[in-house]
Amino acid sequence: MAVYTEVTDEDLAEFLTRYDIGHMLSLKGIAEGVENSNYLLRTQGGEFILTLYEKRVDPNDLPFFLGLMEHLATRGINCPLPVKMRDGAMLGEIAGRPAAIVTFLDGVWVRRPTVRHCAELGAALAAFHKAGADFHLSRTNALGVGGWRPLFERSRARADEVVPGLAGEIDAELARLERDFPCDLPSGVIHADLFPDNVFFIDENLSGLIDFYFACNDAYAYDVAICLNSWCFETDGSYNLTKGRAFLNAYAAARPFSDAEVAALPLLASGSALRFLLTRLYDWLNVPPGAMVRPKDPLEYLRKLRFHRAVATARDYGLDR
Amino acid sequence: MAVYTEVTDEDLAEFLTRYDIGHMLSLKGIAEGVENSNYLLRTQGGEFILTLYEKRVDPNDLPFFLGLMEHLATRGINCPLPVKMRDGAMLGEIAGRPAAIVTFLDGVWVRRPTVRHCAELGAALAAFHKAGADFHLSRTNALGVGGWRPLFERSRARADEVVPGLAGEIDAELARLERDFPCDLPSGVIHADLFPDNVFFIDENLSGLIDFYFACNDAYAYDVAICLNSWCFETDGSYNLTKGRAFLNAYAAARPFSDAEVAALPLLASGSALRFLLTRLYDWLNVPPGAMVRPKDPLEYLRKLRFHRAVATARDYGLDR
Repeated sequence: MAVYTEVTDEDLAEFLTRYDIGHMLSLKGIAEGVENSNYLLRTQGGEFILTLYEKRVDPNDLPFFLGLMEHLATRGINCPLPVKMRDGAMLGEIAGRPAAIVTFLDGVWVRRPTVRHCAELGAALAAFHKAGADFHLSRTNALGVGGWRPLFERSRARADEVVPGLAGEIDAELARLERDFPCDLPSGVIHADLFPDNVFFIDENLSGLIDFYFACNDAYAYDVAICLNSWCFETDGSYNLTKGRAFLNAYAAARPFSDAEVAALPLLASGSALRFLLTRLYDWLNVPPGAMVRPKDPLEYLRKLRFHRAVATARDYGLDR
Repeated sequence: MAVYTEVTDEDLAEFLTRYDIGHMLSLKGIAEGVENSNYLLRTQGGEFILTLYEKRVDPNDLPFFLGLMEHLATRGINCPLPVKMRDGAMLGEIAGRPAAIVTFLDGVWVRRPTVRHCAELGAALAAFHKAGADFHLSRTNALGVGGWRPLFERSRARADEVVPGLAGEIDAELARLERDFPCDLPSGVIHADLFPDNVFFIDENLSGLIDFYFACNDAYAYDVAICLNSWCFETDGSYNLTKGRAFLNAYAAARPFSDAEVAALPLLASGSALRFLLTRLYDWLNVPPGAMVRPKDPLEYLRKLRFHRAVATARDYGLDR
């Protein structure tokens, strides 16, 4: 949960004079998200999300993120649309933080995705990849394969405090992935963090995608692998083949996989499991004093990594081919 | 900020079947309030607040709180109206917690109240006192004068860690207040926690009162004293006589003070300053490990208490009489 920067009524009233969305009627901090401060804003013009970008977001990336949302929204993807100021700008400043207003999306995220939700997700992820293909900006994936070792170096000395032998296991996995990870798969803009809390549903129908603040350019199939990890495992650590089949085949129906993507899927799934293992490990070992966010369990992703190491082909995930 | 209990989409969908407000469209935890878990809920029927009552609220008090809001709302006070289930009940259960849905109020709370805000507050507080006069339930003020000494006993041993000499100063103040505190002033239902974050405004017009979870039966003028403390001091500790005058005279225009109330005001103001000093002192000394709430500074109320000790008459607060 997160509201790091408090917005005063006065700051906001001043900020809103730059927009054409009327007077403020209500402003509530939202207890979700860990990167930024988010407020639900009601004005005479409707409902919006006000986001203040905190220190984990590089201000230089904001034109990419906001431009991407606008690009996607105008191509029919249900995602927040940045609201422009009278002068056309999408980005301002409140309380010393970069700040933007985007449209509000109805829907709730599902705590326990069903098979139907996974199928909806597959179709939406493929549509997102296709809609982003002609976006004119690009952003390197700082958390791609080249970023994992430097990230690990920041936790290595204390990794074995979490599980004995963890440092050695990650070392071996890094060596394997750095050697074998594919670098020539079909690529474009990926979401890179499409966990269940970033996907909204109304009843069983997908109503929108949110939180594009990890979006970057990388292999489409890597985005698929991230979703396999975050949607198709049960809380007991078991892989749900029915969910995997629903997700992968719905994706492939809209954007067919190349042979190289199919062959790479187990390795991509290992890589994405390692990426979340490493960031969670770092957060676990570095909880700031007075933190208002509980770190997520890194071991969930260690178990997933071990699962993927034993997978031979994409067929084992449920892909029909 | 506070969402202590996470509500799943499944729990809520089940809960909503008991109401006539349509399907859920959105649910966001609100990062405000410290007692309960609050969610902003959108359904086909509109906007609502869903509250899960956490352990600091006695479930036996809930019929008083919910009944009071209904009583006030039907008498024209802008406050949340509990939504009734199909069977007429106002209280249900989610995730093992008592839970209720109330209507959503537009408005924002003001971080720095102006003179105009204080005048609006005075009129609204008097209207609230008059509207509550014929409410048929009652609730003892557990944090009234008789509750202060037991509360202090829980912090006394460590009080001097906060300020040297604090325990002795509180002891002397308790002795004075227990001896002199008036017990026969005009009484009825009071809000007892009408701080700026519980009062909404749209522009400079008061749009509603919220958070009735400290409401109880006590002297009306004690409620006035609580507002004097929480609205009419500046952040540097100085008393703003212009705000005090605006607040007190707007109140008196709608509900004139008796002579006894006027005479008692400095003592009531001392008492209410001590009450908030004591609860803040306890919270300050007892921050639970992993707390997601930062305790408020008890010394703010020590300074206010010292101010009131030096006040001779209600005229010094700005009351015209």
